[in-house]
Amino acid sequence: MQNSQYSECFPGNLDKVVTSVVKLLERRGLTVATAESCTGGLLSELITSVTGASAVFELGLCTYSEKMKSRFLGVSEEEIAQYGVVSREVALSMVRGLKQCSDADVCISVTGIAGPGGGTAETPVGTVYIGFDICGKQFVMLPELWKLPDKSRDRIRFAAAEFAFGIVEEMLMEAVQTNE
Amino acid sequence: MQNSQYSECFPGNLDKVVTSVVKLLERRGLTVATAESCTGGLLSELITSVTGASAVFELGLCTYSEKMKSRFLGVSEEEIAQYGVVSREVALSMVRGLKQCSDADVCISVTGIAGPGGGTAETPVGTVYIGFDICGKQFVMLPELWKLPDKSRDRIRFAAAEFAFGIVEEMLMEAVQTNE
Repeated sequence: MQNSQYSECFPGNLDKVVTSVVKLLERRGLTVATAESCTGGLLSELITSVTGASAVFELGLCTYSEKMKSRFLGVSEEEIAQYGVVSREVALSMVRGLKQCSDADVCISVTGIAGPGGGTAETPVGTVYIGFDICGKQFVMLPELWKLPDKSRDRIRFAAAEFAFGIVEEMLMEAVQTNE
Repeated sequence: MQNSQYSECFPGNLDKVVTSVVKLLERRGLTVATAESCTGGLLSELITSVTGASAVFELGLCTYSEKMKSRFLGVSEEEIAQYGVVSREVALSMVRGLKQCSDADVCISVTGIAGPGGGTAETPVGTVYIGFDICGKQFVMLPELWKLPDKSRDRIRFAAAEFAFGIVEEMLMEAVQTNE
């Protein structure tokens, strides 16, 4: 995957990649769930905008507050205090919690700072961690891996969504090819 | 409120009403949560697209499958069997479950059929029930109350969102005026 393709964030491309992900999931008989913070429901909204999404979409959790991250996903106060709510550790913890409560085959978590407020020197606006559990493979994409031409709230949210779906698409296509 | 204003579903108007709702909630120190089915996260996405939403937005649950409606919102299998998943009773049950698990001051639930598939003679595409708990006042808006010029998937989803936020805006404005 070329990271440059995510630096433009064309809505047209985003629609294409989401539709492709839904079709790939359908073809493989897999389900998907999302746990979102800074994207605020954008991922689940995009998935369900595709006709036929009900066959693959299990659950979307938008746990905006720390209290809800803890209640629904089991992210602990200690973890948040130690690593910060926008961190690799919390993204992983969110995706693990999501896997447990949804049992979906593909789980995606997002935690980040869409701005304009909330940024710090250590964690500036635009920092987003995306956690994945794709058929048991768990990993987190670090914010260093994607570059944005500007850091507007919408740009960050849409780029995070496009990046997340791009990863899922690539992994599902590989899996489909391997099985054929 | 004039229902005709919802028959057009201009995105510009939708942005305005969502921003107004977030500002009214902020002004009154209230929180909001959503439980969505056919709108698929659109309501939470719209709320969180407004800068400063983190001060008011507690939780967004997109319980697309019946299993998740039961697990997270306590909607019973018996209820679904008796009334159908797209019904006044299930919208009310969803909003009650949401109130219980989020404890937000304003809770909104949506259950409906955005199509193109899934419609029946009794419950055609475009049927949407919207449940509210606004500071303890619980009620459901019936689909008869709003008319759509066409029944495309997007039109239904966006009109449901605009309708839901319109109701919340109106009630919060009344409450603000009463308190002043």
